[in-house]
This record gives sequence, structure tokens and C-alpha cells, in this order.
Amino acid sequence: MAVSMDDDVPLILTLDESGSSASAPLDELDREELPNENGGSYDVVSDPSSPAARECCAQQSSARHNWEMNYQEAAIYLQEGENNDKFFTHPKNAKALAAYLFAHNHLFYLMELSTALLLLLLSLCEAPAVPMLRLGIFVHATLELFALIVVVFELSMKMRWLGFQTFIRHKRTMVKTCVLLVQFIEAIVVLVRQTSHVRITRALRCIFLVDCRYCGAVRRNLRQIFQSLPPFIDILLLLLFFMVIFAILGFYLFSPNHSDPYFNTLENSLVNLFVLLTTSNFPDVMMPSYARNPWSCVFFIVYLSIELYFIMNLLLAVVFDTFNDIEKRKFKSLLLHKRTAIQHAYRLLVTKQRPSGISFKHFEGLLRFYKPRMGARERYLTFKALNQSNTPLVSLKDFYNFYEVVGLKWKAKRNREHWFDDLPRTAFLIFKGINILVKSRVFQYTMYTVVAVNGIWILVETFMLQGGNFFSRNVPWSYIVFLTIYGVELLLKTTGLGPVEYLSSGWNLFDFSVTLFAFLGLMALAFNMEPFYFIVVLRPLQLLRLFKLKKRYRNVLDTMFELFPRMASLGLTLLIFYYCFAIVGMEFFAGVVYPNCCNTSTVADSYRWVNHTVGNKTVVEEGYYYLNNFDNILNSFVTLFELTVVNDWYIIMEGVTSQTTHWSRLYFMIFYIVTMVVMTIIVAFILDAFVFRMNYTRKNQDSEEDNGIVLEKEISKEEVIGIIELYKRTSAATETAQLQKIVLQMDKYGQMSTVFLGRRSRTKSDLSMKMYEEEIQ
Amino acid sequence: MAVSMDDDVPLILTLDESGSSASAPLDELDREELPNENGGSYDVVSDPSSPAARECCAQQSSARHNWEMNYQEAAIYLQEGENNDKFFTHPKNAKALAAYLFAHNHLFYLMELSTALLLLLLSLCEAPAVPMLRLGIFVHATLELFALIVVVFELSMKMRWLGFQTFIRHKRTMVKTCVLLVQFIEAIVVLVRQTSHVRITRALRCIFLVDCRYCGAVRRNLRQIFQSLPPFIDILLLLLFFMVIFAILGFYLFSPNHSDPYFNTLENSLVNLFVLLTTSNFPDVMMPSYARNPWSCVFFIVYLSIELYFIMNLLLAVVFDTFNDIEKRKFKSLLLHKRTAIQHAYRLLVTKQRPSGISFKHFEGLLRFYKPRMGARERYLTFKALNQSNTPLVSLKDFYNFYEVVGLKWKAKRNREHWFDDLPRTAFLIFKGINILVKSRVFQYTMYTVVAVNGIWILVETFMLQGGNFFSRNVPWSYIVFLTIYGVELLLKTTGLGPVEYLSSGWNLFDFSVTLFAFLGLMALAFNMEPFYFIVVLRPLQLLRLFKLKKRYRNVLDTMFELFPRMASLGLTLLIFYYCFAIVGMEFFAGVVYPNCCNTSTVADSYRWVNHTVGNKTVVEEGYYYLNNFDNILNSFVTLFELTVVNDWYIIMEGVTSQTTHWSRLYFMIFYIVTMVVMTIIVAFILDAFVFRMNYTRKNQDSEEDNGIVLEKEISKEEVIGIIELYKRTSAATETAQLQKIVLQMDKYGQMSTVFLGRRSRTKSDLSMKMYEEEIQ
Repeated sequence: MAVSMDDDVPLILTLDESGSSASAPLDELDREELPNENGGSYDVVSDPSSPAARECCAQQSSARHNWEMNYQEAAIYLQEGENNDKFFTHPKNAKALAAYLFAHNHLFYLMELSTALLLLLLSLCEAPAVPMLRLGIFVHATLELFALIVVVFELSMKMRWLGFQTFIRHKRTMVKTCVLLVQFIEAIVVLVRQTSHVRITRALRCIFLVDCRYCGAVRRNLRQIFQSLPPFIDILLLLLFFMVIFAILGFYLFSPNHSDPYFNTLENSLVNLFVLLTTSNFPDVMMPSYARNPWSCVFFIVYLSIELYFIMNLLLAVVFDTFNDIEKRKFKSLLLHKRTAIQHAYRLLVTKQRPSGISFKHFEGLLRFYKPRMGARERYLTFKALNQSNTPLVSLKDFYNFYEVVGLKWKAKRNREHWFDDLPRTAFLIFKGINILVKSRVFQYTMYTVVAVNGIWILVETFMLQGGNFFSRNVPWSYIVFLTIYGVELLLKTTGLGPVEYLSSGWNLFDFSVTLFAFLGLMALAFNMEPFYFIVVLRPLQLLRLFKLKKRYRNVLDTMFELFPRMASLGLTLLIFYYCFAIVGMEFFAGVVYPNCCNTSTVADSYRWVNHTVGNKTVVEEGYYYLNNFDNILNSFVTLFELTVVNDWYIIMEGVTSQTTHWSRLYFMIFYIVTMVVMTIIVAFILDAFVFRMNYTRKNQDSEEDNGIVLEKEISKEEVIGIIELYKRTSAATETAQLQKIVLQMDKYGQMSTVFLGRRSRTKSDLSMKMYEEEIQ
Repeated sequence: MAVSMDDDVPLILTLDESGSSASAPLDELDREELPNENGGSYDVVSDPSSPAARECCAQQSSARHNWEMNYQEAAIYLQEGENNDKFFTHPKNAKALAAYLFAHNHLFYLMELSTALLLLLLSLCEAPAVPMLRLGIFVHATLELFALIVVVFELSMKMRWLGFQTFIRHKRTMVKTCVLLVQFIEAIVVLVRQTSHVRITRALRCIFLVDCRYCGAVRRNLRQIFQSLPPFIDILLLLLFFMVIFAILGFYLFSPNHSDPYFNTLENSLVNLFVLLTTSNFPDVMMPSYARNPWSCVFFIVYLSIELYFIMNLLLAVVFDTFNDIEKRKFKSLLLHKRTAIQHAYRLLVTKQRPSGISFKHFEGLLRFYKPRMGARERYLTFKALNQSNTPLVSLKDFYNFYEVVGLKWKAKRNREHWFDDLPRTAFLIFKGINILVKSRVFQYTMYTVVAVNGIWILVETFMLQGGNFFSRNVPWSYIVFLTIYGVELLLKTTGLGPVEYLSSGWNLFDFSVTLFAFLGLMALAFNMEPFYFIVVLRPLQLLRLFKLKKRYRNVLDTMFELFPRMASLGLTLLIFYYCFAIVGMEFFAGVVYPNCCNTSTVADSYRWVNHTVGNKTVVEEGYYYLNNFDNILNSFVTLFELTVVNDWYIIMEGVTSQTTHWSRLYFMIFYIVTMVVMTIIVAFILDAFVFRMNYTRKNQDSEEDNGIVLEKEISKEEVIGIIELYKRTSAATETAQLQKIVLQMDKYGQMSTVFLGRRSRTKSDLSMKMYEEEIQ
């Protein structure tokens, strides 16, 4: 048996060879030869302990130690390839390796993230603090110092890993160090003086967050934004140029009209045309001149047509184009980088005797470092999936698929179609019936009808309910009826499909949670738990189910979910910009606007707060705009969001300007331009993602049901037993439990082999690969 | 000589053959056989005069007549191919042909256009008329009736051409007929009653304009808009759906707050969220709830993020994608249509003896109908350019290039590089020096510097000039200095390059006209001609020259000029929508808003017009919004433009609503959605055009200087003489003057052949051809 197995699965022979009979000097030779190719292995080139190790030559433990080092370095290369880390930051010696390993695990990453967040959150408690969270200067300055010291520690670890030379050359790290220094000095000054000074540099704190390992997406976004900047700025200059020309024209044309406050000076003319660019003051800015001469509207129509409808769209076109181009190039360079990483790893894993491929033993060693939590079964399946040829070795060409294959989740292919196949006959028939019912079109459309009726019901009910008591004690009967129907549907589906299959669909998960919420809402109503009333309000979300009906909506919503991570990172990028501007805004404009301020400006009405008595009723006239202030960081964020939405932003600008100097306008204008850049890129991104997706669907109309990447691999019993033997010999006996279970299963069903399915969801990179196939070749 | 020529240029032999020696019966046979292939030739199938003609068989004049008919039909086919007219409207018999010819010339087109414009312009003078243009009911109703009768005449001609069957099936024509009928009845009713009734149907008058031959581009735009509608509506429904959900949520959440007027009823909640979609009421709608509970801003932030920043962009993505796809498919079908047209024409032009190609005689006959104003030289050059093989016949494959070649403008290639090459030595050297100077980089950059200095000068000057007298009698010296420099530059360039070459560049033309305007402005200032002062204001346009500096700007501005025709047609399409809405608006809302109206609404302030006295000064407080009314068509257009820009549109809506019913909101909301569609398509168009262009430039980076399509053809003296002979024989002797001039020229310079250059500017179709090369194959 063992002999025939060796014939079938030669890779175990290879392992036998190197594991028991292979001479250590040969391995040693491998090791000695390989660094020449690679130029950066730890023990041979620079490990001080290596000469000693080499002295007691032919020692097997040394050979194994060498192999372990190789595995680790290969794993590091692969990780660098995955994370798009440049290879010049690759650890160069054993000391660097130790530091590298220390700085590359989730604990360290979490520390990085939490110090960065702590530093950012400090602005909630500092000087213009949120009232509830105000802390004493001593407290928050100490917290800050503490956080900064942690950052110093992190940086020193990084320096140990990178070496001084590389550390100096790494731009981002250098900037971080400088910012750290400034922050440190300022924090100490604050502690000593026991009072906050104008600390605009706090805006730079974001860099600690951006530099976090977990914020790679944000860094990528920022890079993309900066790369899109040059063409953007070109068109922006064109925009501003036309603005200046029109400002001069407008000044000449309209300043003779003394009732026109918008064009009386060149500065006003410029500012108002800038605001007009955002349409924020539109009909108003035209009105005084329009009232005088109806033809003056031509000036504004021409201006808006050129600036708003042409150049602004041009801006989008240019950014979209650059974005597209960058995405393509980025994809290519990423692919190249990954391939280089794979090449590096490959050279570390081949033996001298067999330079044409990697044996399972070495592959397994690599995976032990690359994915420590992967089981023995998965490792073998991954190896099998990679191995396209029938030889026991994985060639470089096969190894190039490493990243695509390593992410697969493996599962034994079940012969049983439904969860109830093993049940007795009667139960089987019942469940089978439910299964058929649940999968039938009639059932689906009935449910859609119910949801639609429910929607109309809610709408009508809400319409009837004009300002009455919304949360009456009596639970409305319609609520109970619909909820019962949904409950029955849920029950039928769960029993018909089996809970696992039911919950594996995103849409079913959505149904489930909405129904659950509705049920909780009912509970809240029935038991009169006031704080949970808000759940009732979520009822209309049921209507979202209707969007399953049409393919385009399914596509849109699917794309939406796919886009979500990237959107979130873009949102975070925007928030980082917000943070910077919020800090600057707070330092300059905190406490500047208040009720009834700004009486000298044209927007005084919006800031009015009058409490006067008409007859015997107190009438409060509120302009409310004093709420849009920079008094603390939360308020600042809301104000900045309002500025992002753009409408009526000039009221906020004018309000602040009238209370400070007219240079404050610069702040608002710069903010507008920055958000315009970010927003344009967000639009370009959404556009790109959807157009890409739609092109993709058009190209692959046959494969409509997209279940992600699926791979099928068959493993025979002999193979499994062979692997168990292998593991037993290499002392990793604990890992064989999973494999032995497979053997038991096979014995139970009398099978000679089991088929495993590897599955993962399709990523953008897979799609890109398919779309750019020709170009990449 | 003549014999050798016959050997060299056999096509003249062919002509000889058919012109003098070829037997008519053979030609007759051709004619008889060809209609079978074609199925729609006039004389044989249905021309009543044909049997008679056939009786006196073997008559050469009949053969020639038949050929003439063939030429004409082929020319019609080619025209149909060019204009993308469907072939089922192809005239079927001689009567139809006569009607076709009558209805297809520029006079008829002009009549069509002018009646349509007259009908549209009538709304300037009808009931809510522009005060200056008001006409009596009798006058404008008579005018209308007259215009409608002209339209009836046009339609009857069309019916004669199309035949009743086709006429009925042609949808656009049927709609036009129905509209015409309604308009007719209404016009008569107006004439009889001597008073205007509510005539919303006037909005349909646009169809007369849309149906014009010259408005093909508008029709194409409308078709594209309608084709983009289905996906657009899908996403719009998604948008509205989320709006409804949020309206219900908002109503539940905020209606308990009695100081919040925005969410007190479900209707208000819906309307305000609709307006919020346009951001038009943004911070205001949030303020009352925000003042009560700061966390309520989350509702608005989530709503805007989903609706404005996600779904609205999705809308753009979907339209952009559909647009792109339609453009590609349209291009393909157009190409196919042209090819079919060419096939039809080809079959009519080949003779039976030589079915493999078209001889020059027949080609010339075709061009006489297709391009009557083309000279004999051009016709021969076009033939030569088409003929890729060395045979005297143009094969079908060559003939497929017809549309590309026929537009070329031919010019003899000059050996002289400069216009002054023939001048005496001294003059030549001087001009050559100027030429080198003008083309040098130093000269160019000096001029850029001058323009930049001029720009800064104007800016500073304007900044200093705070509200003074702009148009002082004293001409500022700086003006004269700069103008002199520009004048000298202009002079140098004209002399150095020659006026023809100078003015052939768009940029030079621009320089020239700006300098001319500046000079006229100086004249106006110097001679104190007040009405021309406005020219002075155009001075800053000089600065536009600076955009020659950077390649991206040159590209952008070039694309801008290329886009201009299409943009204009899109603008016209928008104007047609405006017209419809303006008519409806005038019928319902004319005279509805006026100063101090709308006191019951929340926007009363904007309509206020108070004239009160403070101390001894009269202060006028103006809200001005009463100017945004529907009192006549011009005002309506301005109001609609303001609605298009969207900002503060709800003030106009609320004003009108408060004076009428709340159903008026529907009008404004529908208008918003319609303009959103058109605007999105305009954006998609600009995006598509620029991205296309940028991709194109990226693909063809080597051929940076894009001089359009250039073709070179050499003609020998023998050929020219041969053609002259041919024309002499076919009695078209008057056309040979041009050719004889060539022979004279050749004799003068002692050349045996002349090279001609055919040139035309590159069209979008050429670019598309190059971009979609692979796909088309």
C-alpha cells in the first residue's frame, strides 16, 4: 500500500528524500547557492550566528533552521507583494527581521491605529471642546504626550527594521517624524504654560492615521487624488481665468448701477462670480441688473453656460479620464509587483536538485508562515489547485497563480442536495414540497404583491395620520397581519432551504433582519418600551425588497455592496480633509458667530434670533444660521458638510467674514476647491465602477449568475494517508486530526476519493484581469 | 499620341465605346437588367412614358435618358445614405421622383424652416405677449393660418413623394399631421371668437421645427434622449423610492416638533425632500430639527449621501454608459446604412459588359447629380482617389470609400514654399527673415509675455478704478502701447506667413479679430462714439491667447470648437423643451406673481417691494423675485433658465404655488426632472467627447500635428487632355476651362504631370472608424 502510494504521489517521496535520507550538506549547498540569486537572506549574508552554525556543519537542525528562514523570508516576500510594499523596505538581516516581525502583526497594527485615533479624538476635549467631553488642560496634554511617546516607540521599531538609510529615504515616514517632533514640542509647551495656544499644527495629526497599516486604502486614495491633481489644476486655472475675465467685464458693466451690491468693486465682483460658480447665489446676483435691463441676463447665462455647464464638466471628464488611466496602470504595476514577489519567493523555495519547481514539503513550510491558521487539508488542496501539471512540483508558471488560489475557501462537495435528504420519507416529502413552493415563481410574486400592498398601506396610513399620536398604545391590526405573513414566509424559507443556504444569500439576510426589526418594534409597542419606538419607524425598509424584482436594480444594489469598502475609504479620506479644515476653522472662527451677530453683513437675517410678543403669544423668529459655527469639532464637521453640499454656503461665509476679516473668505474658497477635487474624484470613481461593471456584464451576458470563483479538486484516499504520514514524521501530528476525519468519512461512505470545492467571491482584480486580458498580454 | 493615351487611360476608351460606338441596345439591356436587381427604377417599372420610349428602340437619346435617370437615382441613394434617410422612403416612380426633387432642395428646406420659426415666434406676439411686440388677435391668427397653410402644402408634397401607404406608416409625419389639424382648428376658433382661449397645444408647435430638414441634429438628440430614458427611469424610480421612504421616516421623526414647518404633513415632507434632492433648501430644511437635537443632522447627511452623492451619480453613470453604447451602435448602423446606399448606387452605375466596376463616364454622370457644383477637375480627381487598382474601373470595394473621398478639397501642390518665393532677391531675403523671426520660439514667448503683462495691467488698472468714470475721454496710454505691439505682431505675421497661411489657423484668426476689436474700441474711445464703448470691455479677451501655451489647453479648446455644432444642437434641443414648458407656464401662471404677492407663503420676503422713507432718504427694499414670472415668453425663458440652474428654484415654485393651487408644484417638479434628463445627457455627451478625444490622442501620440485627412494624387498631361476630349464630345464644353488652365500651367512650367492635394478636416466619423477598427471588422 505504502509503495503504491509512493508511486501515485511522488511528492511524498521528495519529502522522504529531504526529510530522512537527503544529506544535510546538499541542503546547505542549496542555502548557500540561493542567497546569491536572492541577495538578501538573513543568516548567510549578515547573521552573526551563521558562521558558528556553519561550523557544526552537516547538522540537520541547521539545515532545517535554514529552510525555516527561507520559508519565512518567502512568506514575507509574498506578503510584501500582496500589500504592495516596496522591496527596498525588505528586512535585510536578522535584527531587522525581528523588528519586521514585531512591527507586522495585528497587535502592533491595533496599537498604531488606537494611538492615531486617540490623538484625533483628543480634539473633542481640547480648548473649543464639546461641552460634555471637556477635559482639563493637564489631562488632555498628558494623554497627548503619552500617545506621542507610543508613536515614538513605533517609529523606533520601524527604524530598527528599515535601517537608518532606508528610514531617511522613506518620505512618508520622514514627514511623520517631523510632525511628531512639532507635536511633541507643542504638547510640552502646553503642559508648561498650562494654556492652549493657536495650534493649527493639530490639523497634521491626521498623518498618524494615514500612516496606519489598516488605512492602506486611504493612502491609495490620497495618492490617486494627488496623481489626478495636475490635469485638474490645469482645468481649474482655465475656470479661474474665465472667472477673472468675466469679473472684469461684470465690474465694467454693472458697477454703474448703484443698487447692485454684487459688482460694486472688483473684489466683490470676483467673489460673487466665484460663488455663482457654485450657483449658490444665482438668481439673486442677477436680479438688480436684470431689474434695470432685462438683457443683462445674457451675461449670466453665458457665464454659467461656459463655467458651470462646460468647464465644470470638462473637469469631471479630465479627472474621470485620468482616474481610468491610473486605475489601469495601477492594476498593471500591481500585477507586476506581485509577480516579482512570487519570483523572489520561488527562488527561495526551490532546491538545488530540483530547480524546476517547489515540492509540497517546502510549499507547506511557506504556508505555515504565510497563513499560520490554515489547516493541513487546505494547504494540500491549495498545493493541488496550484499544480497544473502532473508532476509533484509546482513550477514558477503555476506559482504565479498563488494569490488567486490561496484565498479560496475549501469545502467537501456534498452529494446531498438538500439539508433534509437524510430525514425519513414522510418528512422528506413535506420538506421537499416546501422547498419547491418556496422556489416557485408564484410564491415569489405573491410576496412581492404583499410587500407592495404593505407599502401602499403604510403610505396611506401615514397620510391619514396628520400630526396625531403616532405611537398609540393600540398596535394597529395591519401591522400584525403583515408581520405574520412575513413571519410565515421566513419560516417556510428557512425550513425549505435549510438555515445555512437561506442565510447565505444577502437578500435573504436582509429580509430576515428587517422582519426581525419589525418584530422587535411590535414587542416595543406591545410592552410599551418607549426608547425602542424608533424601530417602528424602520417599517418602510420592507419596501426595499421590491428591488429584487428587476435585474438592473439587483445589479445596482450588488455593485453598491461591492463598492461599499472603497466608498467607505473614500469617505474616510474626505473625513481626514474635514478634520484638517475643522481644526483650522476652530482655531480661527470658534465663537465668532452667535445669535444676532453679523448685523453689518447682507446676510444678517439668517443669523437673527428675535423673541417678541404679538398680542399675548410669544413668537420666536429664528434665522438658525448661528448654529452653523466652528465652536467645537462636531459642530465644525456639520458646518463643513453644509459647505460641501454648497447650497447657501455663502451665507456661512459672509457671516463669518463680517465678524472677522475678509481674508476669511480664502478659507471657505479653498475648502470649496478641495471638496470639489475630492467630490469629483468620488464621482469619477462611482462612474468608473459602474461603467466597468456594466461593460463587464455586457461582455459576459452568458454567465449571468455570478457565483464568484469556484475550483474543483479531487483527492484520493491514498493522498490523504500520505499527507498524514508526512505530518507525523515532521512532528506536526496535531494538525492531522482534520485529515483523519476525512479518511474516516471516506471509509464510512466507502469512497476512494472526495471532491473539494474551493470558493471565493470575485474581486475587482479578477474582473480587471478579464477586462484587460489583451492589453496585459 | 492619342493612341498611346488610349493605352494609358483606357477609361476614355470605355467612354468612346459607349459614347459613340457602343450600341444602344446593349445599354438598353443594361437598363432592363438592372432594375431587376434594384427593384425600384422609375422608367422601366412604372414610368408611363417608358413603353413609348422603348418602342422607338435603339434610339441613342433614350439610352442616354435612361442613363441620366440611373445617375439621378444613384445620386438619390447616396444622398439618402449620407442623411441616414431610410430606403423605404425612396421615391418609387417618376411622379414621386418629381415630388422628391421638389421637396429636396435648399429653397424648400428654407421654406420649411421659416414657417416653423414663424409659428414659434408667434408666441412672442400672442396673448401674454412681449409688450413691444404685441399684435392684434386678427393679425397673429391670420399669420398663423397662413403659416399652417404653408405647412399643409409641404405635407401634401411629402405625401406625393412618399405615397399614401408610406405616409401613413411614417410616425413623425403622422404626429405632425395630427398637430397640424389641431392647430388649424384652434386658429380658426381664435379667428372666429376673436379671443384667445387656453391654448396649451401651442406647446406642440415645436414639432414643426423638429421636423425640418435642417434640424436633423435635434431629431438625433431627441432620439438619443428617448433611447436613454428606460435605464434613466429605472434609476429615477430608485431615487423616488428612497425619497418616499425618507419622507415617511422624516414625517415620523420631525413632525412632533411644531416649530418645524418642513415636515408637518406627509406632503410637505415629500416636497421638501424633493427640493432637498436639488440641495436648494439645504441647511434651512435641517435647521429647526438641528436646533432641537443636534443628532438629527444624521438623517439629512444619510439622505444626501444616498440620494445626492450616490444615486444621482449612478444616474449619470447609467446615462453615460447607455450613451456610449448607443453612440457605438449608431456609428455601426450608420456605416452599414452608408454601405447599403453605396451598393444600391453601384448596381445602378455598372454596365452589363463590365459588371466589375464603374467607368469614369458613369461616375462623372453620378457626380453631376450628386454634387452639381463640383468642377470637372475635382470629379476626375475624386475618381482617381477612389480608384485603388490600376484598372480604369472603380470596383465596389473602392467605391465604399465614396463618402470619405467626395468631401476632399483639391488643390494643386505648390512647389513654392512661401508666398514671397517669386519676389526679387532683396525682398525675398527680407520676407524670409520676417518669416524666420515670426516662427521663432523667442518671438512667440515674447508675445506671451506681453499678453501676460497686459493681463496683469488690466487687472491692476481695473482694481484701482473703484467706481470712477470708466470711459474717460482720455485714451489711457497703456492701451495704445499694447495695441501698437499687437498691431506690429499682426503685421509681421501677415507679411511673414502670407495672408492666406496666416488666416488658415484658427488661433491667428482669433488674434486678428481680437486685435481688430481692440482697435475699433480705440476708435470708439477716440472719436467718442458712445454706443460702441462696450467693445472696450472686450479687452480682457486678449488674455485668451495665453492658452496657446500649453498643449492640454490647445487640446481642450480645439475639442471645444469641434464640439460646438453638437453642443449647439443640444442647446437647441433644450430650447425646444423650454418652449413647451414656457407655453404651458404662460397659459397657467401668466400674471400670477407681482411685487408684494405671495404674502401667505414662507417666501414672501423674496417678493417684497417696499418703498419707505428713512429720515429724508427713500429706501427701496426689493425682493426682485416677482421678476421671475411667466408674463411673456422671454420672461418665461429666463425663469426656466433659473429653474435649470436649480439654486433657489423652490422660491419661484412656492411663490407661484401660493398664488395658485398646490398642484402647480407638479409643473416645477416635472420641469426639474426633464431638465435633469437633458442636462445629464449633455454632461454624458461632453464626458464622452472628451474621454474619446483623450483616448484618441493617447493612442496616436506619434501623429501629434493633426492636419486632417490629406490625399495626394498625380495627374499626367495626357490624362487631362483625355478628359478635355471627353467633355468636348459630350457637349459639356463649358466645363473644360478649368482643365485647359491646368494644361497651360503644365506647359508653362514644362511639367509632364501635376500633383494635387485633397484635404479635409477630420470628422468624428473618421476618429470613430480608427477607434473601433477591430470591432467593426
